[in-house]
Amino acid sequence: MSIRLGALVERLGGQLMGDPNTEVFGIAPLDDANASHITFLSNPKLRAQASHTQAAAIILSAENAEAIGADYRGARIVADNPYAYFARAAQWFASENAHPPAAGIDPTAHVDASATIAPTAFIGPHVTIEADACVAEHAVIDAGCFVGRGAKVGAGTHFFACVTFHARCEIGQRGIVHSGAVIGTDGFGFANDGGAWIKIPQTGRVMIGDDVEIGANTCIDRGALADTVIENGVKLDNQIQIGHNCHIGAHTAMAGCVGVAGSAKIGKYCTFGGAAMVLGHLSIADNVHISSGSMVSRSILEAGQYTGFYPLAKNADWEKSAAIVRNLASMREKMRGLEKTVQLLTQSLTDKNKEQ
Amino acid sequence: MSIRLGALVERLGGQLMGDPNTEVFGIAPLDDANASHITFLSNPKLRAQASHTQAAAIILSAENAEAIGADYRGARIVADNPYAYFARAAQWFASENAHPPAAGIDPTAHVDASATIAPTAFIGPHVTIEADACVAEHAVIDAGCFVGRGAKVGAGTHFFACVTFHARCEIGQRGIVHSGAVIGTDGFGFANDGGAWIKIPQTGRVMIGDDVEIGANTCIDRGALADTVIENGVKLDNQIQIGHNCHIGAHTAMAGCVGVAGSAKIGKYCTFGGAAMVLGHLSIADNVHISSGSMVSRSILEAGQYTGFYPLAKNADWEKSAAIVRNLASMREKMRGLEKTVQLLTQSLTDKNKEQ
Amino acid sequence: MSIRLGALVERLGGQLMGDPNTEVFGIAPLDDANASHITFLSNPKLRAQASHTQAAAIILSAENAEAIGADYRGARIVADNPYAYFARAAQWFASENAHPPAAGIDPTAHVDASATIAPTAFIGPHVTIEADACVAEHAVIDAGCFVGRGAKVGAGTHFFACVTFHARCEIGQRGIVHSGAVIGTDGFGFANDGGAWIKIPQTGRVMIGDDVEIGANTCIDRGALADTVIENGVKLDNQIQIGHNCHIGAHTAMAGCVGVAGSAKIGKYCTFGGAAMVLGHLSIADNVHISSGSMVSRSILEAGQYTGFYPLAKNADWEKSAAIVRNLASMREKMRGLEKTVQLLTQSLTDKNKEQ
Repeated sequence: MSIRLGALVERLGGQLMGDPNTEVFGIAPLDDANASHITFLSNPKLRAQASHTQAAAIILSAENAEAIGADYRGARIVADNPYAYFARAAQWFASENAHPPAAGIDPTAHVDASATIAPTAFIGPHVTIEADACVAEHAVIDAGCFVGRGAKVGAGTHFFACVTFHARCEIGQRGIVHSGAVIGTDGFGFANDGGAWIKIPQTGRVMIGDDVEIGANTCIDRGALADTVIENGVKLDNQIQIGHNCHIGAHTAMAGCVGVAGSAKIGKYCTFGGAAMVLGHLSIADNVHISSGSMVSRSILEAGQYTGFYPLAKNADWEKSAAIVRNLASMREKMRGLEKTVQLLTQSLTDKNKEQ
Repeated sequence: MSIRLGALVERLGGQLMGDPNTEVFGIAPLDDANASHITFLSNPKLRAQASHTQAAAIILSAENAEAIGADYRGARIVADNPYAYFARAAQWFASENAHPPAAGIDPTAHVDASATIAPTAFIGPHVTIEADACVAEHAVIDAGCFVGRGAKVGAGTHFFACVTFHARCEIGQRGIVHSGAVIGTDGFGFANDGGAWIKIPQTGRVMIGDDVEIGANTCIDRGALADTVIENGVKLDNQIQIGHNCHIGAHTAMAGCVGVAGSAKIGKYCTFGGAAMVLGHLSIADNVHISSGSMVSRSILEAGQYTGFYPLAKNADWEKSAAIVRNLASMREKMRGLEKTVQLLTQSLTDKNKEQ
Repeated sequence: MSIRLGALVERLGGQLMGDPNTEVFGIAPLDDANASHITFLSNPKLRAQASHTQAAAIILSAENAEAIGADYRGARIVADNPYAYFARAAQWFASENAHPPAAGIDPTAHVDASATIAPTAFIGPHVTIEADACVAEHAVIDAGCFVGRGAKVGAGTHFFACVTFHARCEIGQRGIVHSGAVIGTDGFGFANDGGAWIKIPQTGRVMIGDDVEIGANTCIDRGALADTVIENGVKLDNQIQIGHNCHIGAHTAMAGCVGVAGSAKIGKYCTFGGAAMVLGHLSIADNVHISSGSMVSRSILEAGQYTGFYPLAKNADWEKSAAIVRNLASMREKMRGLEKTVQLLTQSLTDKNKEQ
């Protein structure tokens, strides 16, 4: 299917420089695009490439529209944020190519009689929906998912195949939960009694806002007594672990393999690189950015970028540096000794100079 | 539902100071509790808070019972280990509020005719149970679980939805396995033949003791020839990876995202912070505690706390410290050069002093 | 069941020294083997053990066959690569003991009418296969798996229970995918628009070659526009995360909990230790080996072993070294100050010596 450039700017805004009747059939990167494609330029370093792209149209900023010059003969859509414009255009193309399932409940699904399923929702094969659960309008629950007793799935939310969404948890509208994610599993809470661990029942919930995306095989623990809270617009990648009673602020994004221990309170608009780890009970301010592979072992009260991972080296070089790191305290002792000796030498020489 | 304080001490012990007919309807933290709740005090720093809690009753130590004084007017239950007492009381409340499924096999489950399912067990929707498997009395196998050929599930053990428990593996009594956990998947064993990897069949089992809890999306590999062993009372959080032929001692607990490579032998009563990693074939003594984010690259034969992660810093500061870490060997060389120079200077000055 | 030594060398090669009619019933390690077993010796350090093993036969190199001498009375199979020979022999034993499911589609499976299922394939209970998907000859799709619209599963490939294999993804022949793996989930791609994240649709595929093994709960993201590619013979352990548009070269192996961010290009014959992490858009040459727990933050263009993790220490010692690492820049400043002072002292002393 195709989209006319005129229709594109009508729906998504931006200023069209070119023929509104030009049709584009898909989106492609600058170097792959041909005359059936629209492309985009957001990185100024790629201007030269943009001026030679074969694309029928290009989404770009006013500044870049001027800079790429007349070599590029196709249409231009000038937008304030070309990358976000590209994302929205791509969503439109994707929705045209999608195969949304017909509303209804697959006959192999097991839906408790007390559950409320909106007539426009889809419940796929082998799904289990327990008592008193609610699935709202246009929600899609793909094959093999589990929705526990009293859980609530908001309008337009999509569970890919094999999501587990436990009792009494809630997710808002337009959410996406990917395969293998487990929402509302028990938090890791035990009291120690003479060496053995006594389980503390986890009776809180997971409360998830609107427009939240949760990656494949990511786990979010239910709260112990109070709830675990994921605010609007949060984006979690795959293989993430969120402990019980965490609170994650709106629009925070975490890349794959991140771990957040229990009761951490994370601000809004934060980003976490892959495999970053946050200890329990910490507070992280808004607009904090944690680099990949970094361990956050104390609260961070000031916005900014924070990092902590051991730099990679050839193994032989690492062996040397690691051996020194192990003994840094003795190196510092030596340094202090040297400082003293040098101070004495200086004193002694000064005295000698005075003598003369 | 409510529990009388008299009934509580009758079942769980402790010394009641107050009216045994007082009814409590749930457990709440010190600051959230109202007159319908029982609360607990285990951290002495919260004594002031405890003395002003609205709770009808409080579980605490003899020492704290005295320390919080007469400001608190409710009932007191004096216990040796208030936190463990709280856990057991919370278990009681939780069991009263639970919705245990009725015994029996859901009609959508696929149970091989040769499997043995105890009459008091529950087999949920869309479960698959293969030939010769055994599910013991009061076990609960929730929706979508898989129990492989000849596997054994002990009495009272609970598999949450979507657990995969492979052929010939065994778990004891009162276990809990959370959603998405995979028990008995193949270990990662290959022989290299001219660059290509030849698979070594993994024919051992996973043998799990009693009172073990296994978190969501955690994997435990089956042994290559011998078995992987998880002793009684072990608690594993979510997203953990246990390699083939590991042996984990009783009552050891691991937080989320921990990885243990193959054939590691870990003692009893150990704890592992989140994302700690253990290399293969190592031995870890009893009562070893590994901090979060630490890589265990050698055996640990002595009990104690061990740590190894790069300290977090503002990114600009980390850039500096990491650059120096990378070149620590050259810094040490400079230091050694300085030491020599200073020694020579000292000698020279001593000689000069002698001359005079 | 048993295998005659003569049949073994006929199928797998090697030179038999001993009676071809000797029957062995299984494989065991040197110290566990008895007269019904065949064993193997690949580590020269175990020669002494080998010379006293009770095994009926031993697979070993010509060099070791000579070195263990006449104390060992059983048969010997001399092979160029005894460990690979052992792996192949073990595969034979395992295949004899396996319970391959009968071909056919379980009546509880949900298979779209437009899907193509080879008559020799097995489709297990509660499986979902969507429109236009293809499952080739002798493929095994165990219970609870999901195969999305238009996906292709190659001949002889085995999905263990609860694998999720999304739309249009493809895997070649003789592959193995373990439980809970999610192939073809959306990559983590968003454009930021004033703080909020706009989803970039992920319309590429995951293209997997022949003889690939993918571990339990491992995730591989589909490409954004182009495809994510896993070449022939790649072996991925459990709990791994592969980002969108990654390209992993043939015969590369990754241990558990590894993470690879988007668009990384990894060469052939590489190995990654557990929990190693690779940042996005990097290139890694062929034959690069990354140690466990190491963060790869820059491209690696030269083969070799690379490492970067903080060395473990007793917590008290770590506290000291970490505090120094945090302040290495000030230590370097002090060092530079000392160098200058020492230089001045040396100069001053030289001047003094000249004076005299």
